[in-house]
Amino acid sequence: MVLEHALITIRAGTAADFEAALMRARPIIAAAQGFLSLELHRGVESPDQYLLLVEWETLDDHVVGFRESEAFAEWRTLIGPHFAVPPVVDHFVPVDGLY
Amino acid sequence: MVLEHALITIRAGTAADFEAALMRARPIIAAAQGFLSLELHRGVESPDQYLLLVEWETLDDHVVGFRESEAFAEWRTLIGPHFAVPPVVDHFVPVDGLY
Repeated sequence: MVLEHALITIRAGTAADFEAALMRARPIIAAAQGFLSLELHRGVESPDQYLLLVEWETLDDHVVGFRESEAFAEWRTLIGPHFAVPPVVDHFVPVDGLY
Repeated sequence: MVLEHALITIRAGTAADFEAALMRARPIIAAAQGFLSLELHRGVESPDQYLLLVEWETLDDHVVGFRESEAFAEWRTLIGPHFAVPPVVDHFVPVDGLY
């Protein structure tokens, strides 16, 4: 399993729209090869910041399979308009015994 | 539920020691009031970076109950020596319907 970790800062005042857009976009990413799960969390100290955590079977399922697909363009068309800046995305792998 | 989100950069070459220290420290945080779960993930792009995710019942269970306890000092004594810089810690709450 590989965890996609994205810190997303949205434009002020668009929280409800962003959350609704992500709800609509979820089936698009959920249909991708290797998708396992998705969670969205909202910042306590910074309510315009969101943490998106997506579990993938492999790194390539995200960075090749999904990102290079037409589905990714649809996903970004839905949620991208709410971004204040480009999201900061990286990947992590669970540490054995601490997951 | 409140998610503690900590990005930890360790000193180069201390990964095995850091992971072992966190394994030893886990029962200390797990015994805290309001602790729900803990996960540790290691960076793919940056292997000296770790993502620590701790679920708490409330924000105060972490920032007051645990951080102001003697247990926190023990926890930090175990894992702190491996930090390259102070961890970046913030909190998130799950978004309804996307968790």
